[in-house]
Amino acid sequence: MPRMIFDAEHEQFRDSVRRYVQGEIAPRAEAWRKAGRVDRQAWRDLGAQGYLLMWAPEEYGGLGIDDFRYDQILYEENVRHGEVGFYMQLHSRLVAPYIGHFGSPEQKARFLPGCISGETILAVAMTEPGAGSDLAGMKMRAEDKGDHWLLNGSKTYISNGLIADVVLVAARTVPDSRYGIGLFLVEEGMPGFSRGQKLHKMGLDAQDTAELFFQDVKVPKANVLGDATKGFSYMMQGLAEERLTGSVLSLASAQTAFDLTMEYIQERSAFGTTIGSFQNSRFKMAELRSQLDSVQTFLDQCVLLHNRRELSGEVAAQIKLLTSELEGKVIDECLQLFGGAGYMEEYRICRMYRDARITRIFAGTSEIMKEIIGRKLGLDDRRR
Amino acid sequence: MPRMIFDAEHEQFRDSVRRYVQGEIAPRAEAWRKAGRVDRQAWRDLGAQGYLLMWAPEEYGGLGIDDFRYDQILYEENVRHGEVGFYMQLHSRLVAPYIGHFGSPEQKARFLPGCISGETILAVAMTEPGAGSDLAGMKMRAEDKGDHWLLNGSKTYISNGLIADVVLVAARTVPDSRYGIGLFLVEEGMPGFSRGQKLHKMGLDAQDTAELFFQDVKVPKANVLGDATKGFSYMMQGLAEERLTGSVLSLASAQTAFDLTMEYIQERSAFGTTIGSFQNSRFKMAELRSQLDSVQTFLDQCVLLHNRRELSGEVAAQIKLLTSELEGKVIDECLQLFGGAGYMEEYRICRMYRDARITRIFAGTSEIMKEIIGRKLGLDDRRR
Amino acid sequence: MPRMIFDAEHEQFRDSVRRYVQGEIAPRAEAWRKAGRVDRQAWRDLGAQGYLLMWAPEEYGGLGIDDFRYDQILYEENVRHGEVGFYMQLHSRLVAPYIGHFGSPEQKARFLPGCISGETILAVAMTEPGAGSDLAGMKMRAEDKGDHWLLNGSKTYISNGLIADVVLVAARTVPDSRYGIGLFLVEEGMPGFSRGQKLHKMGLDAQDTAELFFQDVKVPKANVLGDATKGFSYMMQGLAEERLTGSVLSLASAQTAFDLTMEYIQERSAFGTTIGSFQNSRFKMAELRSQLDSVQTFLDQCVLLHNRRELSGEVAAQIKLLTSELEGKVIDECLQLFGGAGYMEEYRICRMYRDARITRIFAGTSEIMKEIIGRKLGLDDRRR
Amino acid sequence: MPRMIFDAEHEQFRDSVRRYVQGEIAPRAEAWRKAGRVDRQAWRDLGAQGYLLMWAPEEYGGLGIDDFRYDQILYEENVRHGEVGFYMQLHSRLVAPYIGHFGSPEQKARFLPGCISGETILAVAMTEPGAGSDLAGMKMRAEDKGDHWLLNGSKTYISNGLIADVVLVAARTVPDSRYGIGLFLVEEGMPGFSRGQKLHKMGLDAQDTAELFFQDVKVPKANVLGDATKGFSYMMQGLAEERLTGSVLSLASAQTAFDLTMEYIQERSAFGTTIGSFQNSRFKMAELRSQLDSVQTFLDQCVLLHNRRELSGEVAAQIKLLTSELEGKVIDECLQLFGGAGYMEEYRICRMYRDARITRIFAGTSEIMKEIIGRKLGLDDRRR
Repeated sequence: MPRMIFDAEHEQFRDSVRRYVQGEIAPRAEAWRKAGRVDRQAWRDLGAQGYLLMWAPEEYGGLGIDDFRYDQILYEENVRHGEVGFYMQLHSRLVAPYIGHFGSPEQKARFLPGCISGETILAVAMTEPGAGSDLAGMKMRAEDKGDHWLLNGSKTYISNGLIADVVLVAARTVPDSRYGIGLFLVEEGMPGFSRGQKLHKMGLDAQDTAELFFQDVKVPKANVLGDATKGFSYMMQGLAEERLTGSVLSLASAQTAFDLTMEYIQERSAFGTTIGSFQNSRFKMAELRSQLDSVQTFLDQCVLLHNRRELSGEVAAQIKLLTSELEGKVIDECLQLFGGAGYMEEYRICRMYRDARITRIFAGTSEIMKEIIGRKLGLDDRRR
Repeated sequence: MPRMIFDAEHEQFRDSVRRYVQGEIAPRAEAWRKAGRVDRQAWRDLGAQGYLLMWAPEEYGGLGIDDFRYDQILYEENVRHGEVGFYMQLHSRLVAPYIGHFGSPEQKARFLPGCISGETILAVAMTEPGAGSDLAGMKMRAEDKGDHWLLNGSKTYISNGLIADVVLVAARTVPDSRYGIGLFLVEEGMPGFSRGQKLHKMGLDAQDTAELFFQDVKVPKANVLGDATKGFSYMMQGLAEERLTGSVLSLASAQTAFDLTMEYIQERSAFGTTIGSFQNSRFKMAELRSQLDSVQTFLDQCVLLHNRRELSGEVAAQIKLLTSELEGKVIDECLQLFGGAGYMEEYRICRMYRDARITRIFAGTSEIMKEIIGRKLGLDDRRR
Repeated sequence: MPRMIFDAEHEQFRDSVRRYVQGEIAPRAEAWRKAGRVDRQAWRDLGAQGYLLMWAPEEYGGLGIDDFRYDQILYEENVRHGEVGFYMQLHSRLVAPYIGHFGSPEQKARFLPGCISGETILAVAMTEPGAGSDLAGMKMRAEDKGDHWLLNGSKTYISNGLIADVVLVAARTVPDSRYGIGLFLVEEGMPGFSRGQKLHKMGLDAQDTAELFFQDVKVPKANVLGDATKGFSYMMQGLAEERLTGSVLSLASAQTAFDLTMEYIQERSAFGTTIGSFQNSRFKMAELRSQLDSVQTFLDQCVLLHNRRELSGEVAAQIKLLTSELEGKVIDECLQLFGGAGYMEEYRICRMYRDARITRIFAGTSEIMKEIIGRKLGLDDRRR
Repeated sequence: MPRMIFDAEHEQFRDSVRRYVQGEIAPRAEAWRKAGRVDRQAWRDLGAQGYLLMWAPEEYGGLGIDDFRYDQILYEENVRHGEVGFYMQLHSRLVAPYIGHFGSPEQKARFLPGCISGETILAVAMTEPGAGSDLAGMKMRAEDKGDHWLLNGSKTYISNGLIADVVLVAARTVPDSRYGIGLFLVEEGMPGFSRGQKLHKMGLDAQDTAELFFQDVKVPKANVLGDATKGFSYMMQGLAEERLTGSVLSLASAQTAFDLTMEYIQERSAFGTTIGSFQNSRFKMAELRSQLDSVQTFLDQCVLLHNRRELSGEVAAQIKLLTSELEGKVIDECLQLFGGAGYMEEYRICRMYRDARITRIFAGTSEIMKEIIGRKLGLDDRRR
């Protein structure tokens, strides 16, 4: 099934992105995986290309591109040819937009230029040890001390946690209110802000995920994002885009796994023929190809909806659910066709299997997605 | 997820079709199911509305509508509000197009007007007892007798088999060639052409499926469609549209089952609450909703491709595979939520379950679809 | 995998049962399916063979066989060679044991001999319109009128509902108590007791399922089973055996479908070979064979446990869940291998598909089974 | 479901094994995983306990225990409480039995005592780069040089590849015969025998898997096992036991994952309750519990069959297929219930996920198992 949402300009962009990714990211990826983090220069290089915060207004150094397809293309090419643990999308499309949407003019002027150039790397800190997907249950507190807020608590599973210069931190500002939460821009060097070791994860070796600690961190009022009691609402607004972005990555991974497997099974021989010539292989690949095409078409239409500001929270949940589940299925079945080679780290499919297991969990588990979709259908658990 | 391929004119058409189906088809459906066939008057009524062969040129009485979406809407509404066994799509979009594409001007003038008005009902006879999906393996023979062809053999599983006035019959014209097949327009009343009893099927009660017998049937040369040795190629050309049409029906069934189930589980109570309020129900419905939206989006894009003459055989196979498999899954899981009621014929979901089981089989089984898709991927079983 | 729980005596019994079923039941089955019920003579014949209530003490005319394997063999052979809608197991192993366990000596003497001879056919009436699996939510009431109870209400989905001479009816005896339920032996001819039409079901054509009505039915105190307030507890005690029995039927159906399909695909040819020679067919059958052998082994061990009075409610729920789900899967996948023939009622697999859909629902749905198993694991929904 | 094949002596053995594993293996496991291999002392300690080659005759230092259940218990406890990468079963139950069955008295006397004491560690080398599961396609050659054989070739994916003192190597002895293969006992120190780096695998971190190289290795005739042309047949005979042993490990892993998850979800809270109290969690765990119990029962009966020398190759293939597939499913679904924690290496479920992916591949992939089972059913791909 041909992709149908891209025009010539998009394809041209894809070509140049691909060359960049192949030339500048791919050769350094293994080193990053060994180091457990992407080096800062790669961020600056990406910024120099104009690939960070492409949506940002030109006054801050951005390109002012209001078409999600350019980011989609960038992330697809990075997944396919670059390094999936290089979390540019978290920076550009998840954290920075908080500043873009809810920041004051002064905050935008202070932070956005560095984010665009790659000098400033962003992270967001929501999840807490012991709380998981239940954001409203967070325990971290921020107390209003007049000219500043005092932050105490800890956060975990923070992507870009070690390399981030600025961390958007969610903390409870209204003690007795489940949704009374504020968002704070915590900067490297603020006293009381420290970072744990890199968390040892199953995969995403190049991604620095860490625990963050906040002990009597004084955050100036100038670093509060918008209304200090409305952070929960702000977070909810960003979720549809976050899930759409995650879906792009998941499906690009699945598509890549499919293509790698096609190459392998047409090449590799067993029992006097190629693995690909067995009916079982043919049927598996045919089924996966069909599901990939179908979900890709759905995702692409979601991208168009998002461009029109019409992507609802429940459709975003649907596409996140479908892409992450399909990614898991495709990579598992493809790996099986590699046989013993699939278990060896020298084959990319092996690493993809480790990388993929998180996508059914992060940004809301599949179970949370089903809750969102089901409740929107009118099915909730309130007793009659 | 909103449907995105229809404009105001389509929606207006849908409204009028829906009213027609609800008023003219729905009330008669139960009688047809009991009789085992749709009555002829219903066909004439449909023709009078202009709903048959909408694509046919105006010179023959058609509307000359070159947009598959109108047929899509008609079949969706008939599935939802009418009677799925009323096989208007077989007549309009499978059999008649053979005449439209390969017929001589004389044949078009002879047959199309009656097909458009509903006076003439069409069927197509390919499958033979003992041959199944393997069309090239057919045994029925046609011998060239100079001014006519002599047909001998039998066909089975023929939809509209009892009510059809004209049957498009495939028969081998070149004895020693696997693909040397011709297509013949056999008319009611031709000596030697007879019909068996209505086949007793699991479902589709209103659809008259039958075995047809041909014993020394003399078919005038004027009733041969195109080149009498190229029928196999003609059949292949029609398959993409046939599968697209079948996909429309399958998905409309699945969508209808979903909606019926939503109503039931929100209404029906058990253990002090509604069935719909259980997390298991919510999760099942959320998952089905997501898959339905995704496959519907894919199908709708296939319809647009088809309008542009760009729907390939393998994409048609993909959508047929996906829709029929999803239909089976949705109806099975929905029926489960009905509990004991789902096993009772007074609930429509019960009948839908019986009706649906054929769609993974007819017009090429799911296994055949996988063969088509897989071979196109380059995976075949030729030994190295 | 060989069956491992039967000795020579069992095998001998199986041989004689098989001959009986093939000779006496199979030839009459189609007539019963058309009539919608099994004729009374068949019950008396079965009784004459000693095949009803084999467990019953000899003083009442039974065989006093305390080994469930004999019933297992009988039901397996009846499923395979006879008529699955002939609900001998409901009579012998579900309803009659209530009398055996909780009946007074007088009641046993009154009822058991007729049940054993086949003169008296039994049914049990628990489910109510609008209540489903939620037994404790039943609305039918029994009022204590001194020398008799007055029953009012209705029951539905009652197997043997039309042919039963004695119906064990559950009714609420303590108005304000969820579990205050009594069991009453209602006899044909009692004023106010009437039956509805045969319910039109998807399958099980020979099984007479009906709605029953009770309007001011006076039930003498001599017809109350045990303590009139402990019926709920009595019902719970019978459930493990009911589910074990249902499991025997489900798995016997699945095994039979497998064997019919093996025959078909080894015989039927397509594309120049047999269907069975395709790798896809081989893999499907290999997978089903493995699952059948595994679940059969589990079921057989459950039978041994049951013989030792050690089959717990949750293990019974497990085997019921596994066998009914596997039955559904096996028959669906087998039917697919039949292609179009699978949709034709002349092939048994078609009828088996219709018959099987109820087993995931009756005697507690799969969802109820999971509740039972899950709660026993300690996972319940009490909020902390 | 209670296990039913163990008596008091087995349970006593299990207790002592468990204490040993908990005390002597568990504390050293993490170090082994870091080192990429189990240290030699652990093998000697195990030997000192009498836990290696328990089946071996007393004359060589073994216990002469002809009951597979003791090994089953040992491996179950090692999986649950010890280190799955400690491949004692490969040594005791896969490689050593070749010597036991096909070795000469002299070979037994030379090799078995060291294997029993743990001084000599065994490996087996069948798989070659580029050949995978197709053993008969191996390219490694052995030439008869009169008083010795000359071995040339390489092997890969060899478990215990780095620590083994003796490697049983399969090589082609009859150049033009697909099955003309011999088995050779290659010893550490033989000139021309070398080992590659530890292969970097997805999991099984403590297991040293390596590539082995053979360049003009002179193997004395005294080191040939049995008939030098019948190695293929010897290998086939060991496969049933190999697969049974692998099944024990797979199912023990799955059971352990289930138990770890039960603990976690009953402890961990989210949204004001425990994860375990959600209906979705309850249903998932109930389904897994049921499948685990069923397959465990089947496996245990296979063990009894094996004790009676009655475990056929196809039943061994069935249990290998079922246990490895179930292991994959259970661990994946359990990990999901851990949420983000499941992706962190500090939780054992994370490592189990990496470890488990190989079991559907090694000792014959699931696809090979289906071939074996399907062909035994009579379904092969010979064209008619």
